[in-house]
Amino acid sequence: MSEFSTQEKSGLYKAIYTRRDVRSHFDSRPINDEVLARILNAAHHAPSVGFSQPWNFILIRDMATKLKVKESFEQEKNRSSSQVKEEKKDKYISLKLEGILESDVNVCITYDPSRFGPFVIGRSSIPETGIYSVCCAVQNLWLAARSEEVGVGWVSILSNETLKQVLGLPEHIIPIAYLCLGHVSEFAEKPDLETAKWLPRLELKDVVYFEKWGSQDGSDWNRVYDLIRTNLEYAFK
Amino acid sequence: MSEFSTQEKSGLYKAIYTRRDVRSHFDSRPINDEVLARILNAAHHAPSVGFSQPWNFILIRDMATKLKVKESFEQEKNRSSSQVKEEKKDKYISLKLEGILESDVNVCITYDPSRFGPFVIGRSSIPETGIYSVCCAVQNLWLAARSEEVGVGWVSILSNETLKQVLGLPEHIIPIAYLCLGHVSEFAEKPDLETAKWLPRLELKDVVYFEKWGSQDGSDWNRVYDLIRTNLEYAFK
Repeated sequence: MSEFSTQEKSGLYKAIYTRRDVRSHFDSRPINDEVLARILNAAHHAPSVGFSQPWNFILIRDMATKLKVKESFEQEKNRSSSQVKEEKKDKYISLKLEGILESDVNVCITYDPSRFGPFVIGRSSIPETGIYSVCCAVQNLWLAARSEEVGVGWVSILSNETLKQVLGLPEHIIPIAYLCLGHVSEFAEKPDLETAKWLPRLELKDVVYFEKWGSQDGSDWNRVYDLIRTNLEYAFK
Repeated sequence: MSEFSTQEKSGLYKAIYTRRDVRSHFDSRPINDEVLARILNAAHHAPSVGFSQPWNFILIRDMATKLKVKESFEQEKNRSSSQVKEEKKDKYISLKLEGILESDVNVCITYDPSRFGPFVIGRSSIPETGIYSVCCAVQNLWLAARSEEVGVGWVSILSNETLKQVLGLPEHIIPIAYLCLGHVSEFAEKPDLETAKWLPRLELKDVVYFEKWGSQDGSDWNRVYDLIRTNLEYAFK
């Protein structure tokens, strides 16, 4: 039970490395109910600060709701384009950044700071850890969906105020993620923004330090540093 | 490549359901360097808003650093105990909530809001999405570690100001997670706080709504609602 077989382990890494933020490849096949239930249950088994489980999942298929969210996306995208440097603006406008209408199910994941509160173990020094728990649930959902051949796209170009109105959220509930879920014609080989040469993938060695910020040496860490300079990803494809 | 075999899929779900927040069962075996590199690479392949990859990972084995962090934990735990209801206070104080000194490696995961900025696609409407990306990296790390038989505990009873000083973080860098990683004598069957009857596990049906906040009916959703009222977890154990 406790040990992972080679296949089990590579299943996890495969989900991690082939997971994509899907915007363009949704098709019209509905998600099977059992699959949807499994994906949600995976999200519900995320870690949470003080075991507070502070999340809710709102499942949306109503086209009227999707249209209102899509309208908010359009407004926010227009607004944000003024912040893009002139030479990148045309590229930005042409990018496909969401699949709200084409995906079978939209899921809004919310944070409830009052759940089991006011005192939650581990949340008094850093109150944001409640929100961090919800983000861990998002990632569980995303990976489970990938293993079920369901694509997920996170739409963050949105007004949370609009979302609260449209979904009837109580005042104290905070929307954390608005996700589009659906079957796809393909999972892209690389992230869309990497393919579009918007930004490059950083190398692992550029984001790892040892003992202190900025330090990349220390005899304890020589072998780890050698390893993270190699391309580990493809060992699990 | 794209389809998941039954074993691969169950490997992912097994990681999700058997992952634990480990505080008590660390043993002294060091983590293999290859394993550590794989776990970090899994974290680095998390989703990130606008592909901004805004994380850093600081690996810590220096006992002097661990002791300073442990001291901060003790101070914050003492401070927080005044917020606990009188009848639960003794229980709270007796709970083992971290394994800073016993675990082989501590990892601080940080957020850099300046990475590839100031404009990051998808971050202008909801700036917090940069932090949410870092949390997804935490969850990737946690699951990868589980599949490698490495336990992880998230210590959130800490002063981030102390952490910034001790690790030499630049002013604009935000610590998101302080994790303890190490091999364990066992992974507990259930979360420690569930076993200690501090809080119960919520049922999935209690956190899922359809179309709007608070709504649990709708003909589209009858079958999904039936399913989430059953215990799905054990199908993947």
